[in-house]
Amino acid sequence: MAKRDKLYEGKAKTIFATDNAHQLIQYFKDDATAYNAQKHEVIMGKGVLNNAISYHIMSALGAAGIKHHLIKKIDHREQLIRKCDIIPVEVVVRNIAAGSMVARLAGKHIPIDLGTCLKTPMVEYYLKEDALKDPLITAEHITGFDLASEDELKQMRLTSLAINRILGDLFNGIGITLVDFKLEFGRPSQRQEDDPLLILADEISPDNCRLWDKATGDIKDKDRFRKSMGGLVEAYQDIANRFGITIAAT
Amino acid sequence: MAKRDKLYEGKAKTIFATDNAHQLIQYFKDDATAYNAQKHEVIMGKGVLNNAISYHIMSALGAAGIKHHLIKKIDHREQLIRKCDIIPVEVVVRNIAAGSMVARLAGKHIPIDLGTCLKTPMVEYYLKEDALKDPLITAEHITGFDLASEDELKQMRLTSLAINRILGDLFNGIGITLVDFKLEFGRPSQRQEDDPLLILADEISPDNCRLWDKATGDIKDKDRFRKSMGGLVEAYQDIANRFGITIAAT
Repeated sequence: MAKRDKLYEGKAKTIFATDNAHQLIQYFKDDATAYNAQKHEVIMGKGVLNNAISYHIMSALGAAGIKHHLIKKIDHREQLIRKCDIIPVEVVVRNIAAGSMVARLAGKHIPIDLGTCLKTPMVEYYLKEDALKDPLITAEHITGFDLASEDELKQMRLTSLAINRILGDLFNGIGITLVDFKLEFGRPSQRQEDDPLLILADEISPDNCRLWDKATGDIKDKDRFRKSMGGLVEAYQDIANRFGITIAAT
Repeated sequence: MAKRDKLYEGKAKTIFATDNAHQLIQYFKDDATAYNAQKHEVIMGKGVLNNAISYHIMSALGAAGIKHHLIKKIDHREQLIRKCDIIPVEVVVRNIAAGSMVARLAGKHIPIDLGTCLKTPMVEYYLKEDALKDPLITAEHITGFDLASEDELKQMRLTSLAINRILGDLFNGIGITLVDFKLEFGRPSQRQEDDPLLILADEISPDNCRLWDKATGDIKDKDRFRKSMGGLVEAYQDIANRFGITIAAT
């Protein structure tokens, strides 16, 4: 699979064309950004760990019946993925209040704090647009502004909740609480017989999950970077180790 | 109806107790605020106009079958209203893109601009909490955090869309385009036989509607204050005149 033109450079990954029109290469960089890229660092080894962890998690989701874009891991930095028209909506599923939910909503009417368990998982949608700082949007915005159809939105929501149940069990099995996570979905450029309307795209890694050690409460995700706590690679490596992932020497 | 203790002072209105436990007095001030009260002025005569206009509009909605909190107009500054437990959610109905919708969402994925007609009216919900700058919230936040029940939310939404149709006709009849508006609802402290779960509360005036002259495009609402255009009282007076409202000398 020959790597060809760079199609898109994101904050943590770069997408390349291949000689197959319906397949792309997703390259994991070491860049870490936060607060709409106002904070930026290169953290050696992060990309290798995220590639391995995301491969492990996507494969587990695939085995549980969730259709995703991942075809195979090519090497320590790269995955071969199916080409998709990405829905410009970040789907966030929250089990415990943290991050922007607390900052935006905690107060006299919504008495939550960092760590408050939600009665049921909550799904939120954010417009994927850096220039607008990824604003919260509603289901009505998504369908009313044709970001996705009613059926696509329904599938995104239900699939995200199903993924939450599977991931919750997966992380529970390694002593980790799944606090929240972000997903992206896309319309496959070439539809396969058993494809749903949308398939899971992007990555699932400690870059876009909040993961807390059940025993100690230790933070094992990108909040270590956001909060300048240090020890990010060690935390990601710990997640990889607990999953029994062997990382090949880079 | 004796006016008693001041119960609540808002940005544009003050609420007083009366000697009836289920009735309150709503007093319209001349204060104008914008941008979460960062901008503040006293505009002589605004309160008198809003009291008269809101009374006119609420009465028209009542005649069309919408249950509201208004009992009667007492004088040029005051209304007698039913006491309600106010749902801390501002319901915004939009027919045309303007204001925060454009500021938050207009971009490459949502190609709207000031004045873009929406395909269908959109309902948005904002948490009524100044300290948080009234953030946008979702239907799931409202029910998940117990701000309102599923049934109350459904009624708020459907009633707001019904009000949009009635108000749209009402303003159309005086040569005005109803761009968007904000509503509040409450649970009546004393339930009457024909009460729905929630009744319409607060006010409906040029302070919480966007109103554009159909012929000239002139702004006839609080955006004149937000945008420091001047001529606010003249614009509100024009709305009152077109409705045939006679304002008693203050």
